[in-house]
Amino acid sequence: MSLIVMKFGGSSVGNAERMKRVANRIVERKLEGHGCVIVVSAMGDTTDDLIDLSKQLCPGTPPAREMDMLLTTGEQVSVALLAMTIHSLGHEAVSFTGWQAGMYTEALHGKARITDIRPDRIRHAIAAGKIVIVAGFQGMTEEGEITTLGRGGSDTTAVALAAAIEADVCEIFTDVDGIYSTDPRIVKCARKLNEISYDEMLELANLGAAVLHPRAVEYAKNYNVRLVVRSSFNHNEGTNVKEEAAMEQGIVVRGIAYDKNVARISILGVEEKPGQLAKVFTALANAQIDVDIIVQSGVQNGLADFSCTVSLSDQEKALQVIEGIRPEVGFRQVTSETNLVKVSIVGAGMVSTPGVAAKMFEVISELGISILLVSTSEIKTSCVIENGRLNEVIAALHSAYGLDTDQTVFVGGPSERR
Amino acid sequence: MSLIVMKFGGSSVGNAERMKRVANRIVERKLEGHGCVIVVSAMGDTTDDLIDLSKQLCPGTPPAREMDMLLTTGEQVSVALLAMTIHSLGHEAVSFTGWQAGMYTEALHGKARITDIRPDRIRHAIAAGKIVIVAGFQGMTEEGEITTLGRGGSDTTAVALAAAIEADVCEIFTDVDGIYSTDPRIVKCARKLNEISYDEMLELANLGAAVLHPRAVEYAKNYNVRLVVRSSFNHNEGTNVKEEAAMEQGIVVRGIAYDKNVARISILGVEEKPGQLAKVFTALANAQIDVDIIVQSGVQNGLADFSCTVSLSDQEKALQVIEGIRPEVGFRQVTSETNLVKVSIVGAGMVSTPGVAAKMFEVISELGISILLVSTSEIKTSCVIENGRLNEVIAALHSAYGLDTDQTVFVGGPSERR
Repeated sequence: MSLIVMKFGGSSVGNAERMKRVANRIVERKLEGHGCVIVVSAMGDTTDDLIDLSKQLCPGTPPAREMDMLLTTGEQVSVALLAMTIHSLGHEAVSFTGWQAGMYTEALHGKARITDIRPDRIRHAIAAGKIVIVAGFQGMTEEGEITTLGRGGSDTTAVALAAAIEADVCEIFTDVDGIYSTDPRIVKCARKLNEISYDEMLELANLGAAVLHPRAVEYAKNYNVRLVVRSSFNHNEGTNVKEEAAMEQGIVVRGIAYDKNVARISILGVEEKPGQLAKVFTALANAQIDVDIIVQSGVQNGLADFSCTVSLSDQEKALQVIEGIRPEVGFRQVTSETNLVKVSIVGAGMVSTPGVAAKMFEVISELGISILLVSTSEIKTSCVIENGRLNEVIAALHSAYGLDTDQTVFVGGPSERR
Repeated sequence: MSLIVMKFGGSSVGNAERMKRVANRIVERKLEGHGCVIVVSAMGDTTDDLIDLSKQLCPGTPPAREMDMLLTTGEQVSVALLAMTIHSLGHEAVSFTGWQAGMYTEALHGKARITDIRPDRIRHAIAAGKIVIVAGFQGMTEEGEITTLGRGGSDTTAVALAAAIEADVCEIFTDVDGIYSTDPRIVKCARKLNEISYDEMLELANLGAAVLHPRAVEYAKNYNVRLVVRSSFNHNEGTNVKEEAAMEQGIVVRGIAYDKNVARISILGVEEKPGQLAKVFTALANAQIDVDIIVQSGVQNGLADFSCTVSLSDQEKALQVIEGIRPEVGFRQVTSETNLVKVSIVGAGMVSTPGVAAKMFEVISELGISILLVSTSEIKTSCVIENGRLNEVIAALHSAYGLDTDQTVFVGGPSERR
C-alpha cells in the first residue's frame, strides 16, 4: 500500500457538484488500494465572505488572533462536508481540524510557520482503513491558540503532512493541467512540462506564478517530498516537481515567467561615501518593504544613482521612507516608475551553459526594447522592461530558447486563493 | 468586582446591527466594573444553512461526528466576530471555542452531556481584564473529538460555565422580556413574572415553553446558579429564576402552560394479568419513545384499557411498536388520536394548598369540555383536552387562579434555536 496526500484548493470544492467530483476522485484512489490523506481549502468565496463580514463589524484592522478564529471555520466546513460526501458514497472518512491533525505552529497569527507535526491521529485513522480529511491553512500553537499559515497555507499543510507521514507522493490538484513553459494565455504554443526541479519551481513560484506557493515548494525541497501538480477537472498527467538529480538533463531554459507587480524606485545624486547604500536599504527593511533587484550605476562627480524594485503596493511607502532619510543620506532626487514588467528565464542548466543570459539581452534588444534593470541567480535571469510589449518579448524568448517544440515552464491560469 | 455570564441566542446576533447592539450591551456591563463571560450561539439561520448544505451532499443521515464538525463552525464565527466588534469599540475581548474554554463532554455526538469544565484559560483572561467570549453549544471529548450539546445547548453552556467559574449571575438574553404567567399571544393580561423557582421553571420548560431549555434549568438548580431571563432588545428587568426558599411565598399557581405536541395512544381490551403494562412500556422505551402521561382504566370482564401520550413525531413509531408486541401481550385494538393539547397549571405552592387541582377540573367542566387524561406532580397539574377551545380554557384558568392581576408564569413568544 502506498500513502498519498491529495490537496484540493477552494475552487475545486467551490460548490456541491464539485465537492462530489472531488469525493469520487478520492474514492477512486482509495479503491486502487492507497492510504489517502486529503487536504482541503475553504469552499470558493467563503474566506472573502468572512473577511467582508469582519470589515462590517470591525472597520480598521481586526485583531489577528480573532481573524484566525474566524477564517479557520472555512476549512472546517469543507472537511466536514467532504467527509460526509465520501460517507454517502459508502466509504469511511474522518475529518480533522488543523489542531486535531497535530499541526503545531509558532504564535504568529495570520502567517504562522509550522513548528512541529504530530500525526498520531492521522496514522491511527489510516491504519483503521479510513480516508483522512485535514483542514488546510491552519494550525495551533503549543498554548492552544488557533493560527493560520497565511497565503499558500493549504499547499504548505499538504506538503508538510506528506513529509511528516512519509507519503509516497503529494498531489496538488488545481484548476490548470500542470506547470507550463510559459503563460498559455500569452503564448499559444506554451507546453505543459512533465517535470521540473524544486529550484526551478521555486523561482517560478516566487516570480508570480500562482499554482504553487513558494513556501510549499521550499518545504518539499527540504524534505524531498515528491510533488505532482495536476487538474481536479480531468485525469491528465500533470507536472512532477522533484530533485534535479532525478531528472532528464540537458534542458537549459525550462520556462519563462513574468511579474507585473513591479515598481522601480530611483535615488539620484547620492553623495558617494561608504555606508550610503546600507542606510537606504536598512530603512526600507525596517519598514517591512521587500526589495527585489538593486542596481548602483557608475559614479560621476562624486554622486551616484541607485535603483531598486519593490512591489506596487509598497511603492508609496518606499518613497516616504526614503524621503525620511534624506537629511541623513543626502541625495538630489527620488523618483518612481510603474507600468513595468519583470520577465525571467528559468532553468537549472543555465549555470553550466555560457551565453544564456546574453541571448536574452540580444532577443530583447532586437525588438528595440530597452532593458531597465537586470538581475541574475544561478538558475534564472530577470530583465525589467516597460510593460507595453510584454507578449512579443515572451513569444520571442519562448522561441529563441527552443521552448515552442521542446519540453519546457510557466504557471499560467487563474490562481487559487490558498 | 462581580462576575457575570451573559448568554445571547442566535436571533440576538442575527445580523451586523444586532451584533453591534450586543457588543455595546456587553461593554456597558464591563464599564460597570464586572468581569464578563459571554456565551453566543450561531448567527441567525447559520445552523439551518449548514444543515441544508449537508443534506445536498449526504442524503440520508450524515455521520453525527461530521455533523458536529460542521455545525460548531457556526458558533466559532459568532465568537470571533463578536470579539472583533468589541475590539472596534475600544475594549479587549478574546474568543474561545468550546474546547479552548475547557468544556469537556461525553463522546455522544449531537447530544453530548458536559462531563467536566476546566476554565483555566477563561480565568486567566478575566484576570487580565479581558471580556471572554465562549462558543455555546459545543465541547470536546477527552480524546479531542468535537461534540455538540444538542438542543438548548448554548443555555446549558452558559449555566454550566456560570457554575464552574462561580459567577454571581447568569443572564439569558432572548427575544422576549422574561417569563410570563401564560402565553401573551393567547391571554392579553398575561403578566411578566419578577421571579420563579427552578422547579416551576423546569415544569414550564418541559411543558413546551421554549425560552429556557430544561437541561439548563436543571443544571442551574443543581449548582444553584442565579438565572435572569431578559430581552436583548431593551433594558427591562426580566425574570429571576432562583431557589424557592429565597422567594416571596403565598403564590399557589404561578403560571399556565400548554403543549400541542401531544398524541394519545390507546390500547384497548388488554388481558388483565401481571406484567402486561411493563411489557408495553419497556418496548416503547427500547424504541427511544418518551411516554408522558400513562393511565389505566378499570377492568371489565378481565380486560383493561391503557392510554398514554407521546409526542406527535413519535406517534407512528409507537403504533408500530405496540402492534409488534401484540402476540406477546394480547389486546383487542390499538388506536391513536391527535388534535389534542395538554394544559398545565404550575406552582410550588400547590402541594400545600388543597383543592387547586379540583378547581382546574371544575373550570374546564364548566366550559362543557371533556378532560381526556390527567396527570399531576407536586407542583403541577396537567389535563389533556381537545385542541379546539384552548384559548378559552387558558383565559378562564388564568382568571380563576387570580393571575389576571397578581404576579404570576408562562414562556411565550417565538423561541431561539438553541
